[in-house]
Amino acid sequence: MIIVHGAGSFGHYYAKRYRISDKPTKSTKHVVKIRDSMQLLNQKIIKIFHENHVNTFSFSPTSMYNNKKIPIDWKNILQKSISLDLIPVTFGDVLIANNGFYIHSGDLIVHDLCKLLNPKRVIFASNIDGIYQNPEDDSSLIPIINNNKNNLKFSKLHYDVTGGIKTKINQSLKIANLGIDVQITNGLNTKNLSKALNGEHVGTLFVGDNV
Amino acid sequence: MIIVHGAGSFGHYYAKRYRISDKPTKSTKHVVKIRDSMQLLNQKIIKIFHENHVNTFSFSPTSMYNNKKIPIDWKNILQKSISLDLIPVTFGDVLIANNGFYIHSGDLIVHDLCKLLNPKRVIFASNIDGIYQNPEDDSSLIPIINNNKNNLKFSKLHYDVTGGIKTKINQSLKIANLGIDVQITNGLNTKNLSKALNGEHVGTLFVGDNV
Repeated sequence: MIIVHGAGSFGHYYAKRYRISDKPTKSTKHVVKIRDSMQLLNQKIIKIFHENHVNTFSFSPTSMYNNKKIPIDWKNILQKSISLDLIPVTFGDVLIANNGFYIHSGDLIVHDLCKLLNPKRVIFASNIDGIYQNPEDDSSLIPIINNNKNNLKFSKLHYDVTGGIKTKINQSLKIANLGIDVQITNGLNTKNLSKALNGEHVGTLFVGDNV
Repeated sequence: MIIVHGAGSFGHYYAKRYRISDKPTKSTKHVVKIRDSMQLLNQKIIKIFHENHVNTFSFSPTSMYNNKKIPIDWKNILQKSISLDLIPVTFGDVLIANNGFYIHSGDLIVHDLCKLLNPKRVIFASNIDGIYQNPEDDSSLIPIINNNKNNLKFSKLHYDVTGGIKTKINQSLKIANLGIDVQITNGLNTKNLSKALNGEHVGTLFVGDNV
């Protein structure tokens, strides 16, 4: 297992304040503010894991990417960590590129890690139970999205288009296209999250299909 | 510039307690204790840098090594960070190897980074002014050690053989043999440290010579 967490109210605050969410920056001062806040958030998360005897190998993606790509060496580093019972934990952060610094979100990192490691499945722990046909109707939860066969038009769905869920749907489709199952479930519902971690179907499942 | 710091009373305490300074371990529980303490020390150091407007890209060497070696990708990552005015900072920590985890000290990391990046010079900020012929005689500080030409026998020096300074002399000789100048100076003497950073000769200089 690999865990990827987002920025929550930590990194996002500074990224928005300095307006570098969507374009690269050369301001090391701003970069350091964002990275310090992400380090603080990561420390808080790691502390909870370690207090509960879940041992982690936590690292910033800044160390992992070279020229916007994850070098192949990381396949070995991550697999070894997992084989030694140290769960890799990483997060959305600022990356170093040729023309400056840019934000790389946790969702994008998940996709890059899928290409590198080809895992059995991906679970997005969201704050909603899954994808709804109509977000105002609890009974309209879509249990299965069969990406290629149904050729579902997501633009026609009446879901609440916040950046967050839109990005997660797009990333889920991209990952499903790699042949990897993706589930979107509610991370605040620990029972459902446990089920998802054990391979049970909860929330919305994007069936992996690389046809 | 790249900064490498040691473990001080943080990581060393646990490494000694769990007796994994000299042999690899498979205990993820112990590894996590050491790594958490090193992360805490690094945070304290980074905080001081950032408060003084020295912007850093801080990372654990656990992220940098693959199979006991630094992958070539890191040359680009570190050079880019430096070119964007973000000073790389790393430290002695626990690395992941095929047969378990092992400690890799800051001194050894400096040598590995020298091989990767071929810097102009290395400064070891110690708690002594340099290497003494006789540690009880302040006037016996050795200003220059010309590694290959003098063929100095270090085993005959009357220095205080603590692990710390012995390792630093060995590492200095190894780095000088790569053709890189090495200075050992007193990091507690800020005036001398500034001079050393500006390229002045203070303390003991091991002249780089890769003949």
